[in-house]
Amino acid sequence: MDWTGDTHRVDGVVERDFVVEAGGRRVPGVLWTPPDAEGARPLVLIGHGATAHKRIGYVTTLARELVRAHGFAAVAIDGAGHGGRRPNPDDDEMTVFSDFLTEWSRDESTDDAVGDWRATIDAVRALPDVGDGPLGYWGLSMGTIYGLPLAVAEPRIQVAVFGLMGLVGPTRFRMAEDAPSLACPVLFIQQWDDSLIPRDSIFELFDALGSRDKRLHASPGDHAAVPSEEFVFSARFLARHLAPGPDDLS
Amino acid sequence: MDWTGDTHRVDGVVERDFVVEAGGRRVPGVLWTPPDAEGARPLVLIGHGATAHKRIGYVTTLARELVRAHGFAAVAIDGAGHGGRRPNPDDDEMTVFSDFLTEWSRDESTDDAVGDWRATIDAVRALPDVGDGPLGYWGLSMGTIYGLPLAVAEPRIQVAVFGLMGLVGPTRFRMAEDAPSLACPVLFIQQWDDSLIPRDSIFELFDALGSRDKRLHASPGDHAAVPSEEFVFSARFLARHLAPGPDDLS
Repeated sequence: MDWTGDTHRVDGVVERDFVVEAGGRRVPGVLWTPPDAEGARPLVLIGHGATAHKRIGYVTTLARELVRAHGFAAVAIDGAGHGGRRPNPDDDEMTVFSDFLTEWSRDESTDDAVGDWRATIDAVRALPDVGDGPLGYWGLSMGTIYGLPLAVAEPRIQVAVFGLMGLVGPTRFRMAEDAPSLACPVLFIQQWDDSLIPRDSIFELFDALGSRDKRLHASPGDHAAVPSEEFVFSARFLARHLAPGPDDLS
Repeated sequence: MDWTGDTHRVDGVVERDFVVEAGGRRVPGVLWTPPDAEGARPLVLIGHGATAHKRIGYVTTLARELVRAHGFAAVAIDGAGHGGRRPNPDDDEMTVFSDFLTEWSRDESTDDAVGDWRATIDAVRALPDVGDGPLGYWGLSMGTIYGLPLAVAEPRIQVAVFGLMGLVGPTRFRMAEDAPSLACPVLFIQQWDDSLIPRDSIFELFDALGSRDKRLHASPGDHAAVPSEEFVFSARFLARHLAPGPDDLS
């Protein structure tokens, strides 16, 4: 794990860029921790959506909330072909999306993404201010395509937020195969008028999730219109499972 | 409005039984208020499900939470043929349910239920410790069958929690007709494995709700298995709309 760039301190949050190596791939990430943190704490992995990157607004906002309000650590990495892994940084969004569809169609894309995350988890948990505390995952859309197999492969993940995805696309068979093995509590976020992901395919995926403890939250609007209340609920939901308090009802 | 029975004080909540008259019907209810309350405050109407009554566990629990945590008033009434309105207090649940199905089939059942609630609203808001503050509604299953037309007829209702219902049964046309006129923010609670209400009919009803601000929360399990987290969310949701605070998002 190499630190790259400066350490930023923003309103009670330390942000550090890093690169980890995973199977020959160099994976850039950002780690968010409380200032002067010492010892093990809950860590939330945040997976961004297609065409986005590790510092996209909703990733950074959720990460800072988890650090500030709960004292957790949070980490995001760029997906293959995204952010610092774009083959050409000047590519427009449609080119990045087209590259994502190509990557999604590659048989090994899921295993590589899971490998990127596992290398990140190992590297970050070796840090003294993160340590081997409880692990959670948050990722919608592409963050669910690769996060669901990750959460199944990685039993250290104790709670997950998925959504904006159904049993569609090149890895639908892999998702359908993995979903019944999922065991951790899940919040599944749906956009009721999602024009990218057919409603029935979303219900199929939610149905298939093996977790006994799961809930689906649907809001009006298209794929990218997830309302802020679901981010607020996400943070509460992750916190309730990763650092249960005496007042938590579930 | 006549007070009946004793005033109970339970852990920071005053509970008072009353009867109101509505179109010749005598309607028993319970009012929950903070001790020593003075002046207008938000009031939440709580509609119970079929075979239940105004003091059923989840009604009382929600009412007390709204009073204790938020200083609101809450009120519940017995539906026709339920609780203090049972023709024979010794009837078993199946008889009460059968009577409900008969009542549900009666053309005027919705208008009478709406009338019962409007008489209750007027009587309770005339009290100095309730007053004419903002109004909310919470009711699942039978509480939605009659609560949805109430919320459409009664523009003073600013926020509503519905659920466990679809476009089914004798009043499905009335619900389908009223739903598009609903304008207030809505939380809609669904049980994913509801064996009473077909899933598609639930989605049809949620789809039909005219409110721009609506969300559907689905949890595993059958009709009556609504998890406590949805009651916790209900109270927060009602509070956020009836007494917005500086930290409320969305």
